Amino acid sequence: MQTVYLDYAATSFPKPPCVGERMRQYVDRIGANINRGSYDTAQQAGMTALLLRQRLARLFGLGDPTHVVLTPGNTWGLNMLLRGLLRPGDHCIVSAMEHNAVMRPLTQLAQCGVAFDRIPCDAAGRLCMEQIENLFRPNTRLVLLAHASNVSGTVQDAQAVGRICAAHGVPFALDAAQTAGHLPVDFDTLGLSALSVPAHKGLLGPQGIGALLLRPVLVAELEPIVSGGTGSMSDSEEIPAYMPDRLEPGTPNLPGVFGWEAALHYLEQVTIPAAHAHERALSVRLLEGLRAIPGVTLLGPDTAEQRVAVFSLDFGGQDNAAAAVRLEEDYGILTRCGLHCAPGAHRTLGTFPRGTVRLSAGWFTTEAEIDRALEAVAVVSAG
Amino acid sequence: MQTVYLDYAATSFPKPPCVGERMRQYVDRIGANINRGSYDTAQQAGMTALLLRQRLARLFGLGDPTHVVLTPGNTWGLNMLLRGLLRPGDHCIVSAMEHNAVMRPLTQLAQCGVAFDRIPCDAAGRLCMEQIENLFRPNTRLVLLAHASNVSGTVQDAQAVGRICAAHGVPFALDAAQTAGHLPVDFDTLGLSALSVPAHKGLLGPQGIGALLLRPVLVAELEPIVSGGTGSMSDSEEIPAYMPDRLEPGTPNLPGVFGWEAALHYLEQVTIPAAHAHERALSVRLLEGLRAIPGVTLLGPDTAEQRVAVFSLDFGGQDNAAAAVRLEEDYGILTRCGLHCAPGAHRTLGTFPRGTVRLSAGWFTTEAEIDRALEAVAVVSAG
Repeated sequence: MQTVYLDYAATSFPKPPCVGERMRQYVDRIGANINRGSYDTAQQAGMTALLLRQRLARLFGLGDPTHVVLTPGNTWGLNMLLRGLLRPGDHCIVSAMEHNAVMRPLTQLAQCGVAFDRIPCDAAGRLCMEQIENLFRPNTRLVLLAHASNVSGTVQDAQAVGRICAAHGVPFALDAAQTAGHLPVDFDTLGLSALSVPAHKGLLGPQGIGALLLRPVLVAELEPIVSGGTGSMSDSEEIPAYMPDRLEPGTPNLPGVFGWEAALHYLEQVTIPAAHAHERALSVRLLEGLRAIPGVTLLGPDTAEQRVAVFSLDFGGQDNAAAAVRLEEDYGILTRCGLHCAPGAHRTLGTFPRGTVRLSAGWFTTEAEIDRALEAVAVVSAG
Repeated sequence: MQTVYLDYAATSFPKPPCVGERMRQYVDRIGANINRGSYDTAQQAGMTALLLRQRLARLFGLGDPTHVVLTPGNTWGLNMLLRGLLRPGDHCIVSAMEHNAVMRPLTQLAQCGVAFDRIPCDAAGRLCMEQIENLFRPNTRLVLLAHASNVSGTVQDAQAVGRICAAHGVPFALDAAQTAGHLPVDFDTLGLSALSVPAHKGLLGPQGIGALLLRPVLVAELEPIVSGGTGSMSDSEEIPAYMPDRLEPGTPNLPGVFGWEAALHYLEQVTIPAAHAHERALSVRLLEGLRAIPGVTLLGPDTAEQRVAVFSLDFGGQDNAAAAVRLEEDYGILTRCGLHCAPGAHRTLGTFPRGTVRLSAGWFTTEAEIDRALEAVAVVSAG
């Protein structure tokens, strides 16, 4: 049975063919580190890392590619931001829709005297905008939001939040796990101070690498949570002050650097608006199809404009986990059921603790695949 | 000109062909995460991660594969250990030969009330064993050593240190960046509580992944320095207590998992004793050859028994950086010159701040390559 991959919110698949090819080229033929050796392959590695930073800076409208910090992944980038910035006595504002990559570090930090509040969200996962102002305190150091929910696909009005943060002089950071590569995300437009992205979701790269993009003003306040050799200032046991070395210790994930650079080259040719339009068309098709299926409740906004192509379904009377197994075993539809590492979001959406069946699409998803998924959902929901 | 790669201490190259091949297979055909989806490719990924943990546990004599924590690399693993374990008021003992992956986090921790002492070493980089006892304090929480120096190749008598630590009831941890895959390293024999290794050096895997192996008794005391979604206990914003989830948040470096698993399969067939014997023979050859070259000083022990195949040369009257450039440009010998992210080690060895030219060999290095390097060193040293 031909399977239909609808787990893009976990990771995009397939990747553009250039990704695996370029990683293998690096491993088989280049192999050198950046910033350290002088020989030719080391220069090639250095150039590719620089190209990757430049592509990311351009994609997200950050001026200085040296402030694109390569991380081991989005979870690590978010931790570097939260733990690097927040000190005992500080306050942080997040939303009621965050992933545990934000809530677990914040829960740890709360034991060390960092306070946080969640902006309430409505039953579709949208921020209650009018309640944000009241959450600011004199010690608020950061506002951090999931740009779109990994459960319901709900996209927040980041631009409006950015304006509020600017008015308060508080840095605004975005967890773009579900929007990077799917929607335009721009530092200036959204008023961002920091942005964390994974390579392996909408940006079509491999697992094990991500980036934390930072406004220069934020860097000096960020204490590195990991330090080590950088190939720079090697006469000192202190951390270099300059970027990206300050926040990039140790040998980076170089196969990942090569694979991601190739993926972004591919994505630049596709263009984000084209990816966005394709995924929106898939969303419209899925939304229309779901409306015709009784017995299945869709979480989140019911219009494609307010969401990315991440759809959580509740099969009502049935056990959602059993429904997911039937979708896979009987129809080859690969989904993700459960709580999606986001218990807070499920509480907001009213599906805690039973969870949902999540279908998520991306650049390589076809309309025919959406139709196959809809047919399968219709049969399974009928019991 | 055919080059001779002698920068194994930075990273092994080439890798066994299975490494790049397996990574590409994962990226092109599997693509799924572990611990989360139920579909077939997710099971394959989960099995490969488990196999990797089992191979590492077996290789290093740790009983429980769930206590093999996959890290983004050795620097990250060492930081997880140091920052996770040491609290204000604690004391740590290291050596005078550490890499900045240990010294930079310790320097940061020193600003938060963690004290540390360095075990003095002789001019060849060997621990002054008789001075260790005096360094223990009632608040000593950890002894952490570079098993072998990345500058001089000096191997420490870890077994003797392990016995001293056991007598004091203090956990003993090893940074095996330069010994894992080169020498037998065994938890029981050395009396280890923790071991951090990179994949991409002697273990022949890719960059961007490593492992922190832990005795179960240490785990409860280790506060995670990064946390996030684990695909487990997703109803909670607390970190799961069980291993390895407690210390493995977010999507791991899965191409790296596949590549490293293949590399270790290869290495198990080679066997560590065979790799050790091969590299020792290369060391004997290089040591003999160097003795016949006037004008070049070799740092570290002058017998192969006390070292790994990492050789730092001081070209005396000449500028070492210029010598490295001549070795590369005129003879295709790829080395690494400078301070090797280990200023403390260079101070101990008497080569701070001018640095050295480092030649380091490994499993794929041939005797003919050692001979070519020796010829080139002889010519360059003659001025």
